[in-house]
Amino acid sequence: MAFIVKKIINGNEYYYLNENKREGTKVKTKTLAYLGKTKKQAEEKMKQFLKDRSDKDKMVEEENKIEVKELKAEQKQITIEELANFCKSKGFIYPSSEIYGGVAGLYDYGSKGVLLKKNVEAEWLNYFLNLSDNFFQIETSEIMPEKVFIASGHLKNFTDVAAKCKKGHIERADHLLEKNLNKRFEGLTDNELFEIISKNKINCSICGSPIIYVGPINMMFPIELGVGNTTRAFFRPETAQSPYVNFKIEYDVNRNKLPLGLALVGRAYRNELSPRNLLLRQRAFNQAELQIFFNPSKINEHHEFDEIKDYKLQVVLADKRDADAELILCSKLLERVPKFYVYYMAKVQKFYLDVLKIPKNLFRFYELDDKEKAFYNKYHFDMEIKLPDLGWVEMGGVHYRTDHDLKAHQEMSKQNLLVFDEESKEKFIPHVLELSFGLDRIVQMLITLSYCYDKEKNTIVLNLPAKLSPIKVAIFPIIKGKEYENISQNIFNELKEEWNVVYDKSGSIGRRYARNDDIGTPFCITIDEQSLKDKTVTIRDRNTTKQTRVGCKNLKNILRNLIDGKIYFDSLK
Amino acid sequence: MAFIVKKIINGNEYYYLNENKREGTKVKTKTLAYLGKTKKQAEEKMKQFLKDRSDKDKMVEEENKIEVKELKAEQKQITIEELANFCKSKGFIYPSSEIYGGVAGLYDYGSKGVLLKKNVEAEWLNYFLNLSDNFFQIETSEIMPEKVFIASGHLKNFTDVAAKCKKGHIERADHLLEKNLNKRFEGLTDNELFEIISKNKINCSICGSPIIYVGPINMMFPIELGVGNTTRAFFRPETAQSPYVNFKIEYDVNRNKLPLGLALVGRAYRNELSPRNLLLRQRAFNQAELQIFFNPSKINEHHEFDEIKDYKLQVVLADKRDADAELILCSKLLERVPKFYVYYMAKVQKFYLDVLKIPKNLFRFYELDDKEKAFYNKYHFDMEIKLPDLGWVEMGGVHYRTDHDLKAHQEMSKQNLLVFDEESKEKFIPHVLELSFGLDRIVQMLITLSYCYDKEKNTIVLNLPAKLSPIKVAIFPIIKGKEYENISQNIFNELKEEWNVVYDKSGSIGRRYARNDDIGTPFCITIDEQSLKDKTVTIRDRNTTKQTRVGCKNLKNILRNLIDGKIYFDSLK
Repeated sequence: MAFIVKKIINGNEYYYLNENKREGTKVKTKTLAYLGKTKKQAEEKMKQFLKDRSDKDKMVEEENKIEVKELKAEQKQITIEELANFCKSKGFIYPSSEIYGGVAGLYDYGSKGVLLKKNVEAEWLNYFLNLSDNFFQIETSEIMPEKVFIASGHLKNFTDVAAKCKKGHIERADHLLEKNLNKRFEGLTDNELFEIISKNKINCSICGSPIIYVGPINMMFPIELGVGNTTRAFFRPETAQSPYVNFKIEYDVNRNKLPLGLALVGRAYRNELSPRNLLLRQRAFNQAELQIFFNPSKINEHHEFDEIKDYKLQVVLADKRDADAELILCSKLLERVPKFYVYYMAKVQKFYLDVLKIPKNLFRFYELDDKEKAFYNKYHFDMEIKLPDLGWVEMGGVHYRTDHDLKAHQEMSKQNLLVFDEESKEKFIPHVLELSFGLDRIVQMLITLSYCYDKEKNTIVLNLPAKLSPIKVAIFPIIKGKEYENISQNIFNELKEEWNVVYDKSGSIGRRYARNDDIGTPFCITIDEQSLKDKTVTIRDRNTTKQTRVGCKNLKNILRNLIDGKIYFDSLK
Repeated sequence: MAFIVKKIINGNEYYYLNENKREGTKVKTKTLAYLGKTKKQAEEKMKQFLKDRSDKDKMVEEENKIEVKELKAEQKQITIEELANFCKSKGFIYPSSEIYGGVAGLYDYGSKGVLLKKNVEAEWLNYFLNLSDNFFQIETSEIMPEKVFIASGHLKNFTDVAAKCKKGHIERADHLLEKNLNKRFEGLTDNELFEIISKNKINCSICGSPIIYVGPINMMFPIELGVGNTTRAFFRPETAQSPYVNFKIEYDVNRNKLPLGLALVGRAYRNELSPRNLLLRQRAFNQAELQIFFNPSKINEHHEFDEIKDYKLQVVLADKRDADAELILCSKLLERVPKFYVYYMAKVQKFYLDVLKIPKNLFRFYELDDKEKAFYNKYHFDMEIKLPDLGWVEMGGVHYRTDHDLKAHQEMSKQNLLVFDEESKEKFIPHVLELSFGLDRIVQMLITLSYCYDKEKNTIVLNLPAKLSPIKVAIFPIIKGKEYENISQNIFNELKEEWNVVYDKSGSIGRRYARNDDIGTPFCITIDEQSLKDKTVTIRDRNTTKQTRVGCKNLKNILRNLIDGKIYFDSLK
């Protein structure tokens, strides 16, 4: 139940709306909203707040209802350790160079994981490159010369704030604080961090001795090219710089049109002090980023805005941190953020909800305030996903970087990066809107959220969207004999032209189902006695374990429609 | 005309078959074959040789005839410089960080190049992973700890032999020699190289001063992970090690079957002393490798060998270097190389000829002799392609690496890498057959060999195989007006579901064709007056510039068949 609280600060009255909530064995009080300076105001605002909240709850409930899938197994919350073990045993992800004990922060994609990752990558490219005919992919060197990072500011500013203990152990200061105080720490100075550490008497988490120093350490990996007269360079700490550096070449190649989008899916490298949480904080990781170059005088335009104007974004605004995510209409968010920006926020949210099929209540945009965001980002909303064991996790961001990047590279390189707009007769440096995604994070999120447990059979079922599953179809002859294997092989050969499929003739049928359920194979085909007689086979649906019989002739078409989500399994009956 | 030559060495007679050949303005004498020690023997052998050669010529002629395509433009030989300019202007490949002057040996794929590269990668994976149900892709960290490279021998042996001049310039000793003496230098010791340099009075190619030192320099990029207590690691110089290191995990995940294939497409890094020839020798490059782990006692078996036994391999044997490539039947090559190896040689050659569509006479296997190949490679044939301006260029290799790798990693890691064969009850370390491909090299080769010039129109036509072309179809409304654009947009939207296609409504039709010819778009669609009346459009074939009219309804199907090479354009009439 919510209630009003009055606080008196420096003699002034302030009213707040609080609520008690049970969390485990404790009851915690949470501030829901600031209600103003008079009691009357407070009562009105409370009414409005509670009405909005109830409306919102209804909307969320309504919208989640549509998404509910008939799932036989139950979603199971797992810890990072359980996840790591599962991922290794199934060939999704495992520590790199593991026979040598592994290396902190380095992981490999195994034979199943690489398929999942490639599917995510393909869906991302397909979705974002299709937003405009003037969006293109490029693929660039991970090694870039020092000047790039002087211009970008990375050489000076791309530092982690390290906390060093008396015995020399080094750890990220903000991680140390988060671990001890259970709160996010961003945008604080070194001194502020040191102060909080001291005040809370936080010691080294490795040896327990006191922290004696807090200061910056550059996170880039330096490299010397050549021998003798070497060239200093760095492995890039983000994929972002090369689209800026290559902007003019691609602008010319693609006939001088704006907005121009350059998408880059690739590796970036950071010397993380404390890599952790599997793929969430690695030293080498995959990003998928779209850099959109546009005319800044057109920031309040987007020719397809009407298409999304009534779409609701799930947002935590910087000044309403204590509340849950609000549902804000795109047309409404224009009061705060320009049209060009809001349009792409909508497209980003749709990617998570419609393509990756993330449950609505687990996604939100999280607005960063001026202190938290980089000085060159005029608008900055992170995408966050709620994961069991970890809470809300940053998955990427939408950043309006203004002309910061191209201007810096123009100055440093002495190359002219201005463009001329034929239509408006303007000459300017394009501004950049960046859509940034952690590709590995998406993979980990997908496995975590689709991890289900079938009590009855004591097996794991990975409830991945069919389009993303590593293997699309498994084919089982369930009776021994050449003729059954022949039909099965023919089906296998036909289907493998289009998808990754497996053929499995050994073990009980139950074991064969289980082997495929736990890597997320959405459909299994069995070839049985009746198949010989009437050229039909059964399709089994992973989520419901229901089976239905279809003709071999239509099999590929039916599967294609099932995988693409164009028909439901139940409609096959 | 061929003639017999007698040489007397240490009092013994040796007979050789020589031939005079005009090369440019000079006539050169070339030794074709060794004919034995007596005149009679020599005459017989000569007869046989000439008969074989004539048979072979006929075969090559016959086989090339099938491949001849009706090409309106003529193939044009270009230099590396012309190629570099062309690749940049069309958005295929350009120097990385070019606004900063670029970095030697680092290149970026532009918006057209990345599509070509991804198509090659997809075809490679599709072809090689389909060779067995037990072949899988993995994707691994480029950073590996020092111990991996102690075990693999890279730390000690992965060196370039550098020649250092009086003024301190450093260059690869073998490149310096090749440049000056026009010959391949492999497998020589540092001292031997120094001796040849001295004897031929070869000086520094940068400043002209004498070479004073020849010795090894390690080519790997070192890296320190963490801060304080750091972990020493290296950026991998080849993709090969992680499949060995990960072998046991994947063997277990994939249910303990041999042969097991692990394919890896990824980046590798080498601190090349003299990067050159565009993508042929870079400091960061893409490899595509398939590591096949197998039971060594089964090296003389392959269950599908019969399928290729009558297939002819194009080979230069180590002891017949002076002759052109021979055509050797797979069944015949068994006298020299085991079945398992020959089977994969055939598959590799078919990949170049049938998938990449390389003209037969430009491909050969080049056998390395004991001095040239690594000591652990029991058999080693390079794949070579003949490029204008460069001659025969190494594109990859087939390497029988025995148990060298797994044994070394077992010893260093103290992990048991033995497997047990249920069938034969044997316990052993699997042997490795490696199929190694330079992915960037293939891209450069494809652009080079498909570069054609249309004299009549003074335009470039890139005669790429349709399957590999960056853009598959271009769509042009050739009459202005909403209704023409509507049909065109509908076709565009339909086709882009399946391929990368472009829509282009500006400029003369000739310019639109030219823009697409020079990036290799195989088919252009025009929408004209008649399209409105009878729902037909024209398809234009890039190579012949012929056009034909087809119904909109069948368009997608027809294009699919054309792109997949299932029908010929001429059959559409």
